[in-house]
Amino acid sequence: MIWIDGRPDAPLPATDRGLAYGDGVFRTVRVAAGKILWWQDHYDTLRADAARLALACPTEDAIRGQLEAAVVADPGAGYAKLILTRGDGARGYAPPQGCPPRLIIMTGTGESPLLARPLVARWCDLRLAVQPRLAGIKHLNRLENVLARAEWNDGAIAEGVLMDTADRVIGGTMSNLLLWRRGELLVPEVTSAGVAGVARARVLRGAARAGLRVSVRAVTAAEVMDAEALFLCNSLAGLRQVDRLGERNWPPHEMGAALLGCLNETP
Amino acid sequence: MIWIDGRPDAPLPATDRGLAYGDGVFRTVRVAAGKILWWQDHYDTLRADAARLALACPTEDAIRGQLEAAVVADPGAGYAKLILTRGDGARGYAPPQGCPPRLIIMTGTGESPLLARPLVARWCDLRLAVQPRLAGIKHLNRLENVLARAEWNDGAIAEGVLMDTADRVIGGTMSNLLLWRRGELLVPEVTSAGVAGVARARVLRGAARAGLRVSVRAVTAAEVMDAEALFLCNSLAGLRQVDRLGERNWPPHEMGAALLGCLNETP
Repeated sequence: MIWIDGRPDAPLPATDRGLAYGDGVFRTVRVAAGKILWWQDHYDTLRADAARLALACPTEDAIRGQLEAAVVADPGAGYAKLILTRGDGARGYAPPQGCPPRLIIMTGTGESPLLARPLVARWCDLRLAVQPRLAGIKHLNRLENVLARAEWNDGAIAEGVLMDTADRVIGGTMSNLLLWRRGELLVPEVTSAGVAGVARARVLRGAARAGLRVSVRAVTAAEVMDAEALFLCNSLAGLRQVDRLGERNWPPHEMGAALLGCLNETP
Repeated sequence: MIWIDGRPDAPLPATDRGLAYGDGVFRTVRVAAGKILWWQDHYDTLRADAARLALACPTEDAIRGQLEAAVVADPGAGYAKLILTRGDGARGYAPPQGCPPRLIIMTGTGESPLLARPLVARWCDLRLAVQPRLAGIKHLNRLENVLARAEWNDGAIAEGVLMDTADRVIGGTMSNLLLWRRGELLVPEVTSAGVAGVARARVLRGAARAGLRVSVRAVTAAEVMDAEALFLCNSLAGLRQVDRLGERNWPPHEMGAALLGCLNETP
């Protein structure tokens, strides 16, 4: 089901700046048995992402109210996608003054491709552009992801891993990448490109609390390929160990359970 | 007025991939006295841009028919904006198979800011990311333009000039830049970032026919600032000489009329 500013099945004006320019941010939130998972992290991240675009973000109560109504109305929903756009505006790139943002909520079902067993990933040819002003934000300019995902249509491959144009490994097209390597959790920074997802943030927070050695920095492809274990995470699939990337296979690693514990530590 | 797949005021599904990912291309076409200007160039460019995204483009007849109907229905229109998206799809970046693209046409009035006299421009702080896979395409991922245009709200400044992260001058937020320098037309290449606009292509074509010396290559900010004349062009404003950029003022230059002739040479 689709809700626009709290109204079910309301029309979306074609003048929305989300369509015209991708001028907005979004989140995909897992819903299980009518319960919204990790809400506080999602709201905080939505708000922080919006702030980086100087986009007004509705209050937590306002968004949560609409989201809960949407989930109640679609009791079988497995996810809710929230899109926050800068709303309507006159033609032209200048952000309009005083125009309210627009909140679009879509609920639905469907399993994450990352739940596949074995979990097979590939290296993408496309290199992500280096843009610090947009890096980390889950914004609506996702053509790079579309082009990267279009590189394969082998159903056995669940995800593609992306590097930026400066040879840094960034993450998956729809997930963040984590490495267990030489006794530490090594996490690619997403300050040049990519998205700083909520699942990634939760694992980082939980790992720090658990006293694990954690390093967030630029990561090379060689470091990925000689890691003891690779994990992909996002809000829908949680955290999953990668069984295969390119030519290498990895056996199950004990850190999978530990990192899953970090991810799920807080509600 | 807004037309979606030929139907006036039809609703736009919020599931459109143009909203979700900016997965589409667009054109802004000038309309004068019910006449569509430079149609063949616009269609050819739309089709070429779509092809680079592996996006199916309707036939010229199909689009022209919808565009003419829209212009007839809005006799005062000064422009028509055409948006071609990949249409609807299941959630996920993978381009759907067999899903028809969606054509959105919006007509309206309004003068281009580039018609201001004097025409004042500024340098933007934001640097465009280097992404050869998307450079040149007039696609819907335009957050960089939004952020760049948000850098100023001085109504006396009509346009911002952008460089990429490799210090190459690319063009304006909504226009292409042309230099007259040392007896030649020097035009920034847009193979790393930026948009290859129809007005730019027309000037280049006309200049070659007129036997002018033309160079399309990487251009530095220093070359811009010591040019004999600067011009900005797009489909709505045509070609306009820049009176001021940053600290420098330029007097009117005789090449303005010559380049305008190149722009308008063919219909």
